Amino acid sequence: MGNDLYRSRLGNRLNKKVLKFLSSLEDDLWIAQEDVIGTEVHNIMLFEQNILNKNELKKILISLKKIKEKFTNKQIILDHTFEDIHPLIEKWVIDAIGIEIGGKIHTGRSRNDQISVDLRLKIRNELNSLSKKLFRLTEKLLALSKRTINFFMPLYTHFQRGQLGVFSHYITNYISQILRSLERIDEIYKRINLNPLGACAIGGTSININRKRTAELLGFEGIVENSIDAISSKDYLFETLTCLSLISIQFSRIAEDLLIWSTKEFDFIELDDQYCSVSSVMPQKKNPDTLELIRSKASKIISNLFTASMIIKAIPTGYFRDFQDLQNLLKNSLISYFQL
Amino acid sequence: MGNDLYRSRLGNRLNKKVLKFLSSLEDDLWIAQEDVIGTEVHNIMLFEQNILNKNELKKILISLKKIKEKFTNKQIILDHTFEDIHPLIEKWVIDAIGIEIGGKIHTGRSRNDQISVDLRLKIRNELNSLSKKLFRLTEKLLALSKRTINFFMPLYTHFQRGQLGVFSHYITNYISQILRSLERIDEIYKRINLNPLGACAIGGTSININRKRTAELLGFEGIVENSIDAISSKDYLFETLTCLSLISIQFSRIAEDLLIWSTKEFDFIELDDQYCSVSSVMPQKKNPDTLELIRSKASKIISNLFTASMIIKAIPTGYFRDFQDLQNLLKNSLISYFQL
Amino acid sequence: MGNDLYRSRLGNRLNKKVLKFLSSLEDDLWIAQEDVIGTEVHNIMLFEQNILNKNELKKILISLKKIKEKFTNKQIILDHTFEDIHPLIEKWVIDAIGIEIGGKIHTGRSRNDQISVDLRLKIRNELNSLSKKLFRLTEKLLALSKRTINFFMPLYTHFQRGQLGVFSHYITNYISQILRSLERIDEIYKRINLNPLGACAIGGTSININRKRTAELLGFEGIVENSIDAISSKDYLFETLTCLSLISIQFSRIAEDLLIWSTKEFDFIELDDQYCSVSSVMPQKKNPDTLELIRSKASKIISNLFTASMIIKAIPTGYFRDFQDLQNLLKNSLISYFQL
Amino acid sequence: MGNDLYRSRLGNRLNKKVLKFLSSLEDDLWIAQEDVIGTEVHNIMLFEQNILNKNELKKILISLKKIKEKFTNKQIILDHTFEDIHPLIEKWVIDAIGIEIGGKIHTGRSRNDQISVDLRLKIRNELNSLSKKLFRLTEKLLALSKRTINFFMPLYTHFQRGQLGVFSHYITNYISQILRSLERIDEIYKRINLNPLGACAIGGTSININRKRTAELLGFEGIVENSIDAISSKDYLFETLTCLSLISIQFSRIAEDLLIWSTKEFDFIELDDQYCSVSSVMPQKKNPDTLELIRSKASKIISNLFTASMIIKAIPTGYFRDFQDLQNLLKNSLISYFQL
Repeated sequence: MGNDLYRSRLGNRLNKKVLKFLSSLEDDLWIAQEDVIGTEVHNIMLFEQNILNKNELKKILISLKKIKEKFTNKQIILDHTFEDIHPLIEKWVIDAIGIEIGGKIHTGRSRNDQISVDLRLKIRNELNSLSKKLFRLTEKLLALSKRTINFFMPLYTHFQRGQLGVFSHYITNYISQILRSLERIDEIYKRINLNPLGACAIGGTSININRKRTAELLGFEGIVENSIDAISSKDYLFETLTCLSLISIQFSRIAEDLLIWSTKEFDFIELDDQYCSVSSVMPQKKNPDTLELIRSKASKIISNLFTASMIIKAIPTGYFRDFQDLQNLLKNSLISYFQL
Repeated sequence: MGNDLYRSRLGNRLNKKVLKFLSSLEDDLWIAQEDVIGTEVHNIMLFEQNILNKNELKKILISLKKIKEKFTNKQIILDHTFEDIHPLIEKWVIDAIGIEIGGKIHTGRSRNDQISVDLRLKIRNELNSLSKKLFRLTEKLLALSKRTINFFMPLYTHFQRGQLGVFSHYITNYISQILRSLERIDEIYKRINLNPLGACAIGGTSININRKRTAELLGFEGIVENSIDAISSKDYLFETLTCLSLISIQFSRIAEDLLIWSTKEFDFIELDDQYCSVSSVMPQKKNPDTLELIRSKASKIISNLFTASMIIKAIPTGYFRDFQDLQNLLKNSLISYFQL
Repeated sequence: MGNDLYRSRLGNRLNKKVLKFLSSLEDDLWIAQEDVIGTEVHNIMLFEQNILNKNELKKILISLKKIKEKFTNKQIILDHTFEDIHPLIEKWVIDAIGIEIGGKIHTGRSRNDQISVDLRLKIRNELNSLSKKLFRLTEKLLALSKRTINFFMPLYTHFQRGQLGVFSHYITNYISQILRSLERIDEIYKRINLNPLGACAIGGTSININRKRTAELLGFEGIVENSIDAISSKDYLFETLTCLSLISIQFSRIAEDLLIWSTKEFDFIELDDQYCSVSSVMPQKKNPDTLELIRSKASKIISNLFTASMIIKAIPTGYFRDFQDLQNLLKNSLISYFQL
Repeated sequence: MGNDLYRSRLGNRLNKKVLKFLSSLEDDLWIAQEDVIGTEVHNIMLFEQNILNKNELKKILISLKKIKEKFTNKQIILDHTFEDIHPLIEKWVIDAIGIEIGGKIHTGRSRNDQISVDLRLKIRNELNSLSKKLFRLTEKLLALSKRTINFFMPLYTHFQRGQLGVFSHYITNYISQILRSLERIDEIYKRINLNPLGACAIGGTSININRKRTAELLGFEGIVENSIDAISSKDYLFETLTCLSLISIQFSRIAEDLLIWSTKEFDFIELDDQYCSVSSVMPQKKNPDTLELIRSKASKIISNLFTASMIIKAIPTGYFRDFQDLQNLLKNSLISYFQL
């Protein structure tokens, strides 16, 4: 069946290889829970606006709850004839409660504003979780800086010894940087935490929906006023990737410091065994692989920002399928090491 | 003479080609006024801290005022035996008022914190000027959106006609984007507008300077607390370049819209002659070269962000000459079209 | 067990999260067959050099053959306590034929030269397969150009109609570009198709191996002479990514042409239904999603080159774990659409 | 006057700021000599094809010779009402020999194929010069490797001491890399050294020109067959930038090695004073600024490749003014340090 849900006009089925090429199905699992939550809220609003009746809403919410549980329990079997997760969830609802009621769940909504809700909810969670981790890190660094206030070492410029300093001076420098990154997360958060629902495909809808109500129920601080802006602008993704890039640059430079300091030649620190690898031919070595990968992952995270910039810049105002690849960039940047 | 000012220990002169390679002299003209202002304020503080006496300060300020005037009147003759503008300005002061007093102007300061002050002052001015321009642009777009509220046109997704809309819907979408960029400028401004003076080369100074006082006199909202952070962290440059990149992406997409709409095939708008070029062999053509260059300049501005990311990421904590190239990236991004 | 194979010196086990962070196990499946082939050939050479006896070689080859079959039949169960596939394959051999013989298979080899062999073999296959596909594409384009030699259309510059031309003029332009890409593949092929075995960790080995013999058996055209160069230089990866980037740029521009030409406004071509998606709310639309994703994938492939450049550039001569992430970039670029 | 040369149809003059924005006049000086040479050859061919008579050719060649001399002697005064150098040179010819003859020099040629000739000639020269320099460098490195064959030092992986090696082992590793880059220059050279003349704006010309003859006179190995390909494809620029990027990555890593080795902690080498800077506050220091800038310039050169990729990828087949910015990228990459 798959996209036949919508393929009424087009005679031929999608070519199989094309389907594989277009599909974001596997990637969509990352935002599946958010998708169902968005649909729940959308349908509660449809009921409040008298577009659905009480019985319809009840059936819809029960079927969505079951789908959510399946995702939680990883009991999902993906039907790879679907291009993405959104019509597949719709199909599951229809399978469960029939086309007459199930077919109404997308009333006054398009895949375009739906995906934007999913991503905004997901990023919101991820940024909250990241802030917590960064805050905990600053606490640990603060403790470390207190312990190392009498640990004297040269301050380097150009890799050359300059003035005399203390180790904790370096550590508090790291803290200052991370605190600024926490500040930035707060700033972009308020622009991400806005409701795009109601923008529909690009031009809104004539159906009597209530954008402020879905905003309220989803915990958004407001709505994205202009429907073209809601669908076409991707600065909330750009900003998130920028933020992650800057943090990854900070981490990479910290890793570089530790790499240098742990050489036999500099010898300021020794890395804990549990963060090091060993050589297959030189057993006397203790290799700082973790630090090296923090460094290379930073290159990947920065490049994801670059890819997003290229993709967004290359297209005129409107919706284009190119946007699909932005989701994957975001996911990759986040799982690089922020989600460990 | 040139860098002989400092070359006491190193026997050999700098190789001529090396000097040319190292030199940032031409580029430094961009921040020369800011450099002199920073030196004025630094010396006022030195006087208030009883490090200079009244007569010394007076002579220093008079000589600096004359240098500032020379920059304003473009009467500067660069001595290309100098690697950068900062020791050259010092030499001019010494030439004017003698080594005994002139030699004191950098007391408690290094080129590292000095350059950081210059750049922060410069960026501050540029961001203020950019905000004004963007604000004026939104006013013009608002007027345009009012005039085009009855101009019907299709809303496109995938370059395919979707719903019916109005031209002003597109225009207000542009306004929304620019307003968010104005918001971002405000946010980064407060992190840029901080005083790095006192950080010296990297580890601060034992001389009794007053960082809060120079911050106050230069209009900075506070100081960069940690001296290593003040010299080694370049997130204020990264953020500025990020902000310019996002605006350039917005402008590029607007240019792309106008390009498409002005084709004979779409034919929604006609470009004003004064923004168009003509063909050397096909006189019937009116070419939208301005829009095309807005698009290609955006690629340059985005790439400047990535160059900066690469440069900053590649080095450990500390000061390295690599940073010199960041100044040029910033300048290039700003003159691409923001300074027209 | 996992890396305990080598962890003799380091007291503590790898932290679990660290192991997950370091692991390339899943990614390594992509080069697993090549890895076993490299090991087979290495051991045949060890036998010819009298480092293994006939019985040992026989047992080793039989156990490797079984492993290869398991990979082919996807019967592999990955032990996630291993950081990468290479010691895991070694463990399987040891489990099968005992430590006394199985422990010898890496004699005179390190993971560093081993991985380089795997990648070079893999790239060789991929480039051959890509060449075939590009050649087939030029044949199809040639046929199309013949069919469209009387299909008149304007030649555009600046999106403005210029001279009159024919459709096949555009098509033969595509062919010219692809032929140059085929030429480039040939050129880089000869630098990739060289044997790094014998470089060991970085400095070669004192064991009496025969580099020319393994080159011969693996079909390499020669050896990488300098052992540091063999391990530390990654230009063969850079070149491959460059080649893929250029092809993806060519494809993206072709996709852009087709996108424009298939708009209702230009209307030169109509896309086949089986390459198009439909809208969830606007059933009259036929969306060229395939073309749009060809465009966005190109951004990803280009960015992979940029990531690789950043990673390689950031490290001094030698081996660093950062290199691990290059393998994934290559894989991602290749599966973006070249392996469909 | 300026572009009025061609502005017949468009009523209004170019807006002054727009002119400044569009202008490549300063940048064009870089290819001015090549431009005149291209025009000379084009006009000789026009004479051979009986499109010009002997007297006309004579006058044209004499006026072009004078212009070339002016460029050589830096006696050029740029008229900034022109957008680029090409119509300005045409105007000088017309001023010198009158519109009747001077107006014929561009017969059967457009600015599009003209600029492509200029760039191909320029790149050809630059690559020849670069090859010579790289060859000389390998000779110096070879001599150094011979002198250091008994200079023992550890071979590092992960910044950790591994096997024992000799300094010359590192040096010959550098040589191997550079030799491959020399090979690449040869390969791309043959694709650059082709004649685009005759492609005109994009669709060729009906005038009876002789493409093979201009190719012969300009020393091109052949012609770019397809006229769209000749104007629209920019892979010859992409390839050149790729080649420069890879060399800059190699140089950056060499610089990184030298930086590490010259620290007090590693202490394998001491840098010559004439390549080092001094600190303004710490006179005991000798700073490896030259090496650091080799590193940061590499980031710039790599980014130029990515800017070019973005610009080229973003536009459909045809000519767009975006291409103008490619010339500047190439120039910047070349003068970064290759032209010292």
